[in-house]
Amino acid sequence: MSLLVVGSIALDSIKTPFGKVEEALGGSAVYFSCASSLFSSVRLVGVVGADFPKKHIELLKKKGIDIRGLKIDGGKTFRWKGEYGFDLNTAHTIYTHLNVFAEFKPEIPAEYRDSENVFLANIDPSLQIDVLRQVEDPRLIACDTMNYWIENKPKELKKLLKGVHIFFANDKEVRQFSGEINLLKAARYIFSCGPKIAIIKKGEHGVLCISKDFIFSYPAYILEDAFDPTGAGDTFAGGFMGYLSGVNRINEASLRRACAYGTILASFAVEDFSVNRLLKLTDKDVKDRYKKFKRLMHLSD
Amino acid sequence: MSLLVVGSIALDSIKTPFGKVEEALGGSAVYFSCASSLFSSVRLVGVVGADFPKKHIELLKKKGIDIRGLKIDGGKTFRWKGEYGFDLNTAHTIYTHLNVFAEFKPEIPAEYRDSENVFLANIDPSLQIDVLRQVEDPRLIACDTMNYWIENKPKELKKLLKGVHIFFANDKEVRQFSGEINLLKAARYIFSCGPKIAIIKKGEHGVLCISKDFIFSYPAYILEDAFDPTGAGDTFAGGFMGYLSGVNRINEASLRRACAYGTILASFAVEDFSVNRLLKLTDKDVKDRYKKFKRLMHLSD
Repeated sequence: MSLLVVGSIALDSIKTPFGKVEEALGGSAVYFSCASSLFSSVRLVGVVGADFPKKHIELLKKKGIDIRGLKIDGGKTFRWKGEYGFDLNTAHTIYTHLNVFAEFKPEIPAEYRDSENVFLANIDPSLQIDVLRQVEDPRLIACDTMNYWIENKPKELKKLLKGVHIFFANDKEVRQFSGEINLLKAARYIFSCGPKIAIIKKGEHGVLCISKDFIFSYPAYILEDAFDPTGAGDTFAGGFMGYLSGVNRINEASLRRACAYGTILASFAVEDFSVNRLLKLTDKDVKDRYKKFKRLMHLSD
Repeated sequence: MSLLVVGSIALDSIKTPFGKVEEALGGSAVYFSCASSLFSSVRLVGVVGADFPKKHIELLKKKGIDIRGLKIDGGKTFRWKGEYGFDLNTAHTIYTHLNVFAEFKPEIPAEYRDSENVFLANIDPSLQIDVLRQVEDPRLIACDTMNYWIENKPKELKKLLKGVHIFFANDKEVRQFSGEINLLKAARYIFSCGPKIAIIKKGEHGVLCISKDFIFSYPAYILEDAFDPTGAGDTFAGGFMGYLSGVNRINEASLRRACAYGTILASFAVEDFSVNRLLKLTDKDVKDRYKKFKRLMHLSD
């Protein structure tokens, strides 16, 4: 089934204790697409400037990502520069130049309007609402958000959630949005806003999936060498939504597998800068790590 | 098999957003014993003052805990007063009166010297070393510690670890002790000091067990109502060591179950103040929660 993603496309300059890159391919829609395209046919909507390297466009095409929704504007591409300390948990932003992304008004091409699965990456909730107005009748709509929108556009975010099935956020954001410290109570608040499922991302501590009827909790995959955590959350969402877009039934069993694939794809993403590791991934790599991940949290009777 | 624990016995005054208690039974050896006595015959070594309520002694006896190693000193019992905020993650200490615990020199009664399993709860590593001198030839020795000893008695701690099989600490302490951010690398440093297994406690984020040959990672059990986190780590150790003391072979499978029982016992402990919930626990409660915990992190092929 088709999977539409709307989000950012960026040129990231990143320094970690293990190395650095300048103007590498990044952005939520890019990480998401590179992960989800392993499972599903992906349609991308985003904007770049005239300075966006052609090799990046070729690379997305080569991955089979449908980029008819990629707008090339006259200005400059969104740029972000950040630095991480040894713990890799918190990025210190050196600059954010929104450039063409500042005026981004997602236009869903006519060919994309029948998309069956939709992922609204973290952008202004007003724009996320606007995307939902332009699609026909997706069977699955998921969104991500961040503290900035929770603080500055709470009404729009709540309006958006009325039309969303799956809400992605990290544990801090879920607590901030709901006003509840306990994550089960926080999830119930989210359900009262519309979504049926809350995916609570906890970075190195794993992920929690809560619905009205079930709950599950997975640790992160344990890595010897995490290299650059940029894009891990969007890669998780890509693995998750990519897998779900390929299954007929969205139920507890498929949601568990989706969270596992999200975790696994994210674990690959942080092993190199940009989407470098994701681009080299084989089906075997993913299958092998799925087995190891299952083993990691195995418990017998 | 017999299980010896050496640690603190305290009267705790605790305030959380959900209630408060004054001078309730607490201390690492108490939480540990109440949890481990569900699985194993437990021998306790500790000290209290003449003011220690007789009802608490009766209660430990009633749980089948061997208290021949409990010294009743002339002074006052160790007292701690603390307060937690809504997130229940960090205790704000109002006072710590060590009282008789300040001069605690663990004396292992002759009847305890053949103990097959030993848990050294968090006390001065010099005293932990002293306990090991007094026991014959335990098949399993585990210890806990804290940031204070890592900072102030690193030499003694390292000397202790030469004789320890399983090292318990939280993720911050493991990173501090090893100087490594990556927990796999941190565990390798720990192995170089002596222990064969590192149990890394992460509170609400679960637990990680690392040995040279295997690794596993479990989330915490998810609770609707966490009430008071005091003693959760010692209760975890109690469930873990209690279970292991009852099995013949210490291997990956039994360590996985031990971590599950530790997690489950800790989840019960935080549902009420002091050891109240632990005292009411039935085998069925534990079995039911084991099943739910297994289900929480289940993943099919």
